Amino acid sequence: MHADQPVRTGRAKRLPRAVRERQIMDAAVDVFSRLGFHAASMDEISEVAGISKPMLYAYLGSKEELFATCIRREATVMMEAIAGGVEPDQPPDVQLWSGLRAFFDFVGENRASWQVLHRQASSQGGPFAAELAEMRGRAVSLVAALLVHSSRSDEVPSTSEQEAESLAAALVGAGESLADWWLDHPDEPAGVVASRLMNLVWMGFGDLVQGNIWHPPSRR
Amino acid sequence: MHADQPVRTGRAKRLPRAVRERQIMDAAVDVFSRLGFHAASMDEISEVAGISKPMLYAYLGSKEELFATCIRREATVMMEAIAGGVEPDQPPDVQLWSGLRAFFDFVGENRASWQVLHRQASSQGGPFAAELAEMRGRAVSLVAALLVHSSRSDEVPSTSEQEAESLAAALVGAGESLADWWLDHPDEPAGVVASRLMNLVWMGFGDLVQGNIWHPPSRR
Repeated sequence: MHADQPVRTGRAKRLPRAVRERQIMDAAVDVFSRLGFHAASMDEISEVAGISKPMLYAYLGSKEELFATCIRREATVMMEAIAGGVEPDQPPDVQLWSGLRAFFDFVGENRASWQVLHRQASSQGGPFAAELAEMRGRAVSLVAALLVHSSRSDEVPSTSEQEAESLAAALVGAGESLADWWLDHPDEPAGVVASRLMNLVWMGFGDLVQGNIWHPPSRR
Repeated sequence: MHADQPVRTGRAKRLPRAVRERQIMDAAVDVFSRLGFHAASMDEISEVAGISKPMLYAYLGSKEELFATCIRREATVMMEAIAGGVEPDQPPDVQLWSGLRAFFDFVGENRASWQVLHRQASSQGGPFAAELAEMRGRAVSLVAALLVHSSRSDEVPSTSEQEAESLAAALVGAGESLADWWLDHPDEPAGVVASRLMNLVWMGFGDLVQGNIWHPPSRR
């Protein structure tokens, strides 16, 4: 489910810390996404992870700390999946499409992560909302860089940084909101959902990069 | 700032309850948006509203209840502004444009409301996040109805309810996210921000209602 971390193998050694921590976080994401932050207990997380509660606290701290660590890890894994999915040598539409595919594939394959990342963190508020805002900021920067790069590769005036950032914020918000909608409609395949957003924004952005602008009626 | 409510005038009467409550909520929205939910105190709200703290509690309950009431009122006022801005007899693009204009005009003229509605409520989580989710649901239904209506007025196959709802969720998320970005870039006029989103989604949706679909490279 997640990118492999280096595992030191040895004779009859106890599990390396990184492996143990990963097991605990997998268990925690599972429990948090099923029960919500408040109802989730360290007892249940330690049971699912198969370690004692004192060990759980020793490894990853309080429930609040554990939850924050889970948000950071899931966010990082997701951003890596998206950045890794975008092929920088492809034309802009294909780059955007591969980024959207990577995003919806990630959400589809890691529904528990998305629950924790998005629904749980935003319904908890406070420091978790701040973690989430930080992650959104990174996503917006990533998309803005892609948009600036795309518009530079065409013959139209390049998109300003500020314009690109605002379009990126709109696109990230659209993706988040659609992924959240998708959680309640899991029967739709990832490709269909991704392609719907692609069509909405690319056939839009596609017109924009060709300089086709929509005008209100008074200016027609 | 808000739609007028009926005010009973009389000789030297005390203020009617509805007027008093409106004053309190205006004060509360102001204080919550400036200080955030946690730092806001009932002392400060009662000072800004110009009434005693016991009266404040008697009218609108605890700080939690007052905050929830504010979210509901601001959400309702905003939804009325948007629904009132859309002219049902206009072509779909003009309807969408007038809805987006009404939304960004509302946010621009009521930045404090938007802070409370969106940033404060989502960073508080819990029951406030639920209020916010309820409001988003209403916004998505409103936009979905508009999209279904638009696509029926063209000669292309009508958008399914489910497809419309998912596109509406994307659009509402894009609007929310862009409005939130705008709070940090208040130098841009409402019309510029609205027109940026209009171009992103309409030139997109405009192609879609004409049956112009984006295909991944393998199917070209």
